[in-house]
Amino acid sequence: MVGAGTDRSKTALSGGPAIVLVRPQLAVNIGMCARAMANFGLSDLRLVSPREGWPRTGAYRKGAYAAAAGAVHLLESAKLYESVRDAIEDLSFVYAATARGRGQMKPVLTPAQAMPGTAARMTAGEKHGVLFGPERTGLDNDDVALADAILTFPVNPAYASLNLAQAVLLTGYEWFRAAHGDAIPFEIEERSPPATREMTLAFFDFLEGELDKRGFFRPVTKKPVMSRNLRNMFHRMGLTEQDVRTLWGLVVRLVEGPRREPKKTSRKKQAEGADS
Amino acid sequence: MVGAGTDRSKTALSGGPAIVLVRPQLAVNIGMCARAMANFGLSDLRLVSPREGWPRTGAYRKGAYAAAAGAVHLLESAKLYESVRDAIEDLSFVYAATARGRGQMKPVLTPAQAMPGTAARMTAGEKHGVLFGPERTGLDNDDVALADAILTFPVNPAYASLNLAQAVLLTGYEWFRAAHGDAIPFEIEERSPPATREMTLAFFDFLEGELDKRGFFRPVTKKPVMSRNLRNMFHRMGLTEQDVRTLWGLVVRLVEGPRREPKKTSRKKQAEGADS
Repeated sequence: MVGAGTDRSKTALSGGPAIVLVRPQLAVNIGMCARAMANFGLSDLRLVSPREGWPRTGAYRKGAYAAAAGAVHLLESAKLYESVRDAIEDLSFVYAATARGRGQMKPVLTPAQAMPGTAARMTAGEKHGVLFGPERTGLDNDDVALADAILTFPVNPAYASLNLAQAVLLTGYEWFRAAHGDAIPFEIEERSPPATREMTLAFFDFLEGELDKRGFFRPVTKKPVMSRNLRNMFHRMGLTEQDVRTLWGLVVRLVEGPRREPKKTSRKKQAEGADS
Repeated sequence: MVGAGTDRSKTALSGGPAIVLVRPQLAVNIGMCARAMANFGLSDLRLVSPREGWPRTGAYRKGAYAAAAGAVHLLESAKLYESVRDAIEDLSFVYAATARGRGQMKPVLTPAQAMPGTAARMTAGEKHGVLFGPERTGLDNDDVALADAILTFPVNPAYASLNLAQAVLLTGYEWFRAAHGDAIPFEIEERSPPATREMTLAFFDFLEGELDKRGFFRPVTKKPVMSRNLRNMFHRMGLTEQDVRTLWGLVVRLVEGPRREPKKTSRKKQAEGADS
């Protein structure tokens, strides 16, 4: 739905914390995690003892690759480990993603609290990672014990069940915001330059002149406040030069009634003046 | 994986912006969106012409309900509409989720930028909503034209394809953080209530009808784009109910010319109608 903006000519980002999927049950979920990572420029995917094995062939592989959409490169470069300990031995700071406190006396952080520090420390050369447990049961206490801190998600307490790829997505989202800012991924289009105040005021004078002729401002004592309110409404539009031309044409048409059939040469020009 | 924290004894949250799925292709994706909504306490799900129909029976229904996990109540209470316009007529502020700029001169916001304002204004009684387009193609330009602002996601530009449920998830996440997290609450100034979409659209229809009679839309082939640009200009005003009444009176006056001297008893009432 919001896919059409993908621009493969742009350099793919890489970096970010290692995403460590601990004993994931379904290959299709590994694919969905890869996709979520790619959305936010994460590139270090690690798999600890996937239940369906890895790399897969046949239907499992096909499901994972379909779910990854264009992020197949992450599946291709995923590293496979037998234990959590092996998977994190090169990292200096590890989060364990859980939905509950685990009575382990560790700091508990949300992704928005955790990722700015991770982004800054990774820029300084550290390597961080996040452990995510199996779909059904989550990380066990021994996995959590290997981590420096707990990462948890601000969710509706009555419905706290995030799926695996969603938890990876929110982690990636906050990492991306911390590392690259809350940036809009496309250029805001050029628009007509903003109208000068002179232009806007000339339009107001014209409009109010026409309204005045037609008795819009009644009673007359209320004209100042009515005029002010009207001008404020138009100011809220943030009018461009083109907008002022359009509005001017609109008022002229309302006032003068049906226009005479324009000469052929002028028809195109008039349309251009009213539109942008 | 992080599901074990769900506590069904806690009161389910409800509220948040309406999530409007426009022509969703797959029922299973509707289910996944419902789940993402439940995670963040959103409760107003609206469906516009789902391709597979709604409510479904048989396999489609089963897929949607399975994907929704425990969020079946949202599917049960989802409202079905034939058009986007119908789906949003009770809302006062509408975002269109897109991955690209659409050349429509609308404000472009990320969820983190948008949701604090939406949370505050909804607390003050406004109704907001977000349009999400079909999985493959996204919203078309006419859908986007109905919105006040564009909502876009800060993603890796080289891999910007978020799936439907993920886009809903990030929107819900930021809404939840704004509504229930540590967002600084701010006072909304007293003003006339925001115009409902129904009121605004009725005004547009009236205005364009008058303009049409007078040949404003020339050449006729340009009418759709002229109309869309005009409507977008007015949407940028953030019209209140009083604003719409004022504009309506303004157009009537321009069209009808000088009004007859009102009877003494009605003069005060007329002035009040045009002013605030």
